[in-house]
Amino acid sequence: MSTQREVRVAVAGATGTVGQRFICLLSAHPYFRLVSLNASPRSAGKAYKDVVRWKQSVPIPKNVLDMVVKTCDVDQFGDAEIVFSGLDSDVAGDVEEGLRKAEYAVFSNAGNFRRDPMVPLCVPLVNPSHFAIVPHQKEALGLKKGYIITNANCSTTGLAVPLYALERAFGPLETVMVTTMQAISGAGYPGVPSLDILDNIVPYIGKEEEKIEWELTKILGGLADDQKSFDLHAKHPMKVSASCNRVPVVDGHLECASVRFARRPPPSPQQVKDALRNFYSEAQKLGCPSAPEQAIFVHDEPDRPQPRLDRLFQNGSGVSVGRVRECPVLDLKFVVLVNNVNLGAATSSIINAEYAVAKGYV
Amino acid sequence: MSTQREVRVAVAGATGTVGQRFICLLSAHPYFRLVSLNASPRSAGKAYKDVVRWKQSVPIPKNVLDMVVKTCDVDQFGDAEIVFSGLDSDVAGDVEEGLRKAEYAVFSNAGNFRRDPMVPLCVPLVNPSHFAIVPHQKEALGLKKGYIITNANCSTTGLAVPLYALERAFGPLETVMVTTMQAISGAGYPGVPSLDILDNIVPYIGKEEEKIEWELTKILGGLADDQKSFDLHAKHPMKVSASCNRVPVVDGHLECASVRFARRPPPSPQQVKDALRNFYSEAQKLGCPSAPEQAIFVHDEPDRPQPRLDRLFQNGSGVSVGRVRECPVLDLKFVVLVNNVNLGAATSSIINAEYAVAKGYV
Amino acid sequence: MSTQREVRVAVAGATGTVGQRFICLLSAHPYFRLVSLNASPRSAGKAYKDVVRWKQSVPIPKNVLDMVVKTCDVDQFGDAEIVFSGLDSDVAGDVEEGLRKAEYAVFSNAGNFRRDPMVPLCVPLVNPSHFAIVPHQKEALGLKKGYIITNANCSTTGLAVPLYALERAFGPLETVMVTTMQAISGAGYPGVPSLDILDNIVPYIGKEEEKIEWELTKILGGLADDQKSFDLHAKHPMKVSASCNRVPVVDGHLECASVRFARRPPPSPQQVKDALRNFYSEAQKLGCPSAPEQAIFVHDEPDRPQPRLDRLFQNGSGVSVGRVRECPVLDLKFVVLVNNVNLGAATSSIINAEYAVAKGYV
Amino acid sequence: MSTQREVRVAVAGATGTVGQRFICLLSAHPYFRLVSLNASPRSAGKAYKDVVRWKQSVPIPKNVLDMVVKTCDVDQFGDAEIVFSGLDSDVAGDVEEGLRKAEYAVFSNAGNFRRDPMVPLCVPLVNPSHFAIVPHQKEALGLKKGYIITNANCSTTGLAVPLYALERAFGPLETVMVTTMQAISGAGYPGVPSLDILDNIVPYIGKEEEKIEWELTKILGGLADDQKSFDLHAKHPMKVSASCNRVPVVDGHLECASVRFARRPPPSPQQVKDALRNFYSEAQKLGCPSAPEQAIFVHDEPDRPQPRLDRLFQNGSGVSVGRVRECPVLDLKFVVLVNNVNLGAATSSIINAEYAVAKGYV
Repeated sequence: MSTQREVRVAVAGATGTVGQRFICLLSAHPYFRLVSLNASPRSAGKAYKDVVRWKQSVPIPKNVLDMVVKTCDVDQFGDAEIVFSGLDSDVAGDVEEGLRKAEYAVFSNAGNFRRDPMVPLCVPLVNPSHFAIVPHQKEALGLKKGYIITNANCSTTGLAVPLYALERAFGPLETVMVTTMQAISGAGYPGVPSLDILDNIVPYIGKEEEKIEWELTKILGGLADDQKSFDLHAKHPMKVSASCNRVPVVDGHLECASVRFARRPPPSPQQVKDALRNFYSEAQKLGCPSAPEQAIFVHDEPDRPQPRLDRLFQNGSGVSVGRVRECPVLDLKFVVLVNNVNLGAATSSIINAEYAVAKGYV
Repeated sequence: MSTQREVRVAVAGATGTVGQRFICLLSAHPYFRLVSLNASPRSAGKAYKDVVRWKQSVPIPKNVLDMVVKTCDVDQFGDAEIVFSGLDSDVAGDVEEGLRKAEYAVFSNAGNFRRDPMVPLCVPLVNPSHFAIVPHQKEALGLKKGYIITNANCSTTGLAVPLYALERAFGPLETVMVTTMQAISGAGYPGVPSLDILDNIVPYIGKEEEKIEWELTKILGGLADDQKSFDLHAKHPMKVSASCNRVPVVDGHLECASVRFARRPPPSPQQVKDALRNFYSEAQKLGCPSAPEQAIFVHDEPDRPQPRLDRLFQNGSGVSVGRVRECPVLDLKFVVLVNNVNLGAATSSIINAEYAVAKGYV
Repeated sequence: MSTQREVRVAVAGATGTVGQRFICLLSAHPYFRLVSLNASPRSAGKAYKDVVRWKQSVPIPKNVLDMVVKTCDVDQFGDAEIVFSGLDSDVAGDVEEGLRKAEYAVFSNAGNFRRDPMVPLCVPLVNPSHFAIVPHQKEALGLKKGYIITNANCSTTGLAVPLYALERAFGPLETVMVTTMQAISGAGYPGVPSLDILDNIVPYIGKEEEKIEWELTKILGGLADDQKSFDLHAKHPMKVSASCNRVPVVDGHLECASVRFARRPPPSPQQVKDALRNFYSEAQKLGCPSAPEQAIFVHDEPDRPQPRLDRLFQNGSGVSVGRVRECPVLDLKFVVLVNNVNLGAATSSIINAEYAVAKGYV
Repeated sequence: MSTQREVRVAVAGATGTVGQRFICLLSAHPYFRLVSLNASPRSAGKAYKDVVRWKQSVPIPKNVLDMVVKTCDVDQFGDAEIVFSGLDSDVAGDVEEGLRKAEYAVFSNAGNFRRDPMVPLCVPLVNPSHFAIVPHQKEALGLKKGYIITNANCSTTGLAVPLYALERAFGPLETVMVTTMQAISGAGYPGVPSLDILDNIVPYIGKEEEKIEWELTKILGGLADDQKSFDLHAKHPMKVSASCNRVPVVDGHLECASVRFARRPPPSPQQVKDALRNFYSEAQKLGCPSAPEQAIFVHDEPDRPQPRLDRLFQNGSGVSVGRVRECPVLDLKFVVLVNNVNLGAATSSIINAEYAVAKGYV
């Protein structure tokens, strides 16, 4: 990618936890150049270092310390071409819609447009092919360059990668059951009160189960032939059941999944492991610099992946899978780990944008 | 039970974590009188307080402080009628077999005899009816009073109670899927190293999944008509799939379960909640003093049960259920909490023994 | 105390974490009868069970479930004689002042009046003798029955008990250094965000060090001869230095203290242990039912007290001390554990009130 | 350092937790080349990846995966010039003594030789000047190249750096009081059982207080004029009192310290902060590649340093200080954070060795 021209980018919601992670990743990016930090009016006009409650384990990047934060008004994003949005969902809808109208390419981590029938819900290692709906999105809204791409919910993202690898190797899945154990960082800051989670588990995360159950159908499904709508996996209806739990882990969502394939007989555990190991995504082929070298790492040890030991593998840009074995009820069960703050959030948006650049959408 | 005569009991493995819990519960028992503490030769001959590494949140009961510990040799249990065994499985087999031959009634928390075709695997709120095989067990071994009763694995126990309540109300279950999040106390002391579990989850517990998958068929199944063997739920084959995780919680196993009933249409979530709430076990009817007032507490709040808030309900002798809802794949899903050190271990053994006393088996 | 008449009490701030603890303790109290639950207007008019976010490990007491919550307006406390205040400090000042004027005896856990020159700052195992200023407080304000008693900050309370026992046995202390490790429950709910404290320590608690350093002088000091003012330990100036940390522990503040006595030579570790063990407070002598049987438990084991093992000793109404040994810099060092939600908060208020009843102040 | 020749090194105790950290650091080192992994006979003859229980959050370095582990017999270290020892103290004494006799330069993290009157106890940012005793050590033992250098206990190391910076700027310290809150990784693996530390603190670490109190005098003291003995800070006797606690934190020891200077008046907090910020060690001046860019980072925020946020600063090779303020008892108090597994262990040994190379001791 050495010949890639520099692309100017902004971060909306720059002071929040997702915004902080965007800043960490973008500060070291080979061709994205951070030109604008945007946040609430409360922070605007002040140096970034004076308004942020920095919660990352690395210091604030030096080039960002004294950048003056601006508001999220649509005229405050300067000459950025791409806006990464780490906004909270209560404000993301209006801001992102305004930015799109102002002809920005918006890559959003917020949930507001995930169910929009013209907006790709894009896990970059899975379905960047959904970018093909972007021309329709722009045309329908009378725009030249403006569009919105969302990435998926963090727990959905982790599961979507191996499920897609399995469908590509063995054909459609009929049934997916998953129980998640999700890290506290997934709830933002201040997020989960410590009295709720120390020496405890909360077996409920508002709307999370519905997100997983629905988003997977959009992500794993295809586009209609006219490339103007999503088919929601309708050719091969897929039933998904999720149970979501919050656990006392800082980073890294662990998920216990069981699946049933349409094809009989189903593949063996060894065939599944081979298929996961060999999976190579379009984003990797294109050389997206934030994509992992290996999309799916498959552990042979019986007790892996584990959040603390495996969440930083490849800077959290891939997923780890382990315990691939037969399921007495469905066909196969396995364990997935995704780094919710990296691939599960900011990293996905950035790879999506890298894909857009490589494909000429920016 | 005020007229119940005193029954003399011993604890084998008295210094271990399960043994400590037995001692706490027995010291306050209305009619079991603790007459013997038995442990390894290393501890024998010394005062209990000088050899135990006490890890309970209540002090050592005063009457036990200076009791002299004896070995587990079969002649060291004095005039006890019942022996509660909290022994580790590496020694439990020989000791318990010896005690049975010496005509003791042995109530064991160890796993060694759980698959024995003549030994009841007994969750006291579920299948004390399996005691009916005890005459056969004694006869086959030529014994008058000696027999072994085991209680189930802690995570199995918690799930067995609501599953049994459902089968009693709605007929046989066809399919059970469960993902467990198990507390560290389930692994004993020293058990799980802190470096393995702080800010982490281990998605594996050796042989635990196999235990759940097999033990449920024995517990929920019945006895053959001649009361000399277990039918392992064979009349209505039941498929069980378990995924087990160790989590950073001190006490209390949380389990996310999904079930499918044989009967069509299945009961509604409201019918299931009613059935669980109305469930009343044989042990409760008999007035066993350690049985809970309510066997299954059903939460209506969306985020319960939680280990830290609910594990001490009724001194941990019942189970808590919440989030009863439809499952997009099977019929219904719900969350179960069991106190693994109480109902999941020592309390079950004690209620089993109370049942045996009430029914004349002691 | 069997002949003590029933005393009607109210709880202001009944839905907060301290209020919840008051309710737990008062529901089982031998002679305090809970007649009024008062909270913010938002909760008023509704059943307690419908407005509280209950965070205790025991269920809401049955007699409280359906009590209708009232506001904290001064005419809403009915015929209560005593009001226990678990109010937040931002509202406690006005409410408590109003209640005093309305002739209620107010026992407050809030900090607002702790530095008031007419209000006792009372650790019930230490300085209930300060109640002697109450007649002056009432007289100065022209009241017949109304007055305010505060208990101390939780970390101050734990340290004050052994320090007082030492001063009573060996004369004045010259120097006290203490480093605290304080539980998250001390910060209320939602309190400390989990992202701040999981796998972490925060070496700072706002104003906590100043509280310990000042409150100890008021508590350990005496009254002026005319019983109209506090002497703040002025006869023997005492220097106190505190360093406060928040740690990932649910309940129980642990404190590492070093002290220097005025008297030379100082007492030996063994003399100190004896003095702490033999300490018997006025509240115990009077038979206050919530006072501990033993005020200070002294551990001989090298690694105690520990929060999880020792915080429930005597229902958290006493303090635990361990590791009494010589200090290479000052005279002696030791470790103190106090249950911050019991003796460190609600229990202290209740024993203070019991003392007031016993002494005829109510 | 680009012209530095390659230096061949071995790791003794390669499979332990300190050994694993040595391997991580050495695999990326600019001129140390890892030529030998040595461990117990149980591991010898097998590939490293097959015998290690890897507990690091980064994968095993690729070049090490298949290295064949050898025993710690003195003839098994091949042509290494330096041996880094991460051995447990029960075997370290004999092995290290043997290696020294065999003319290896031994840099040990074990405690066995820390009190040896000829062996430097060397915190690399503090007292590499103690290397001047090495010629005496070799001569006294009749050796040409063999010698032993130890680094300090992890909690001592963190405190020694700012104390040394203060003594260099303001002259001798008279008194040091410190309370430590130490991470579980300091106890190795399996180390602290999770049942002892989850939701808990253990106010005791065996021999740790004695280590801090004594080691500081050796480290902060000088050499006698003949460079044949250590003066143990004898010219200005220094009293040190330590209280040590184990806390539920994975990595990073936090320490609350108070100090008194000999000089009157003492420096102000601002002077202290300036002195700490300006401190620049000999190892940094020499360009040791593993030395931090900044030895001491001083926080102005009131609530820092914190283990989780600050332990990875500069890869854990510096220390963080915060909350510099006046102490009501001594002169000044502050908080120190040291990464116990990096600067507190392997990193110190490696910088010590880099210093030895730069100074011609290797």
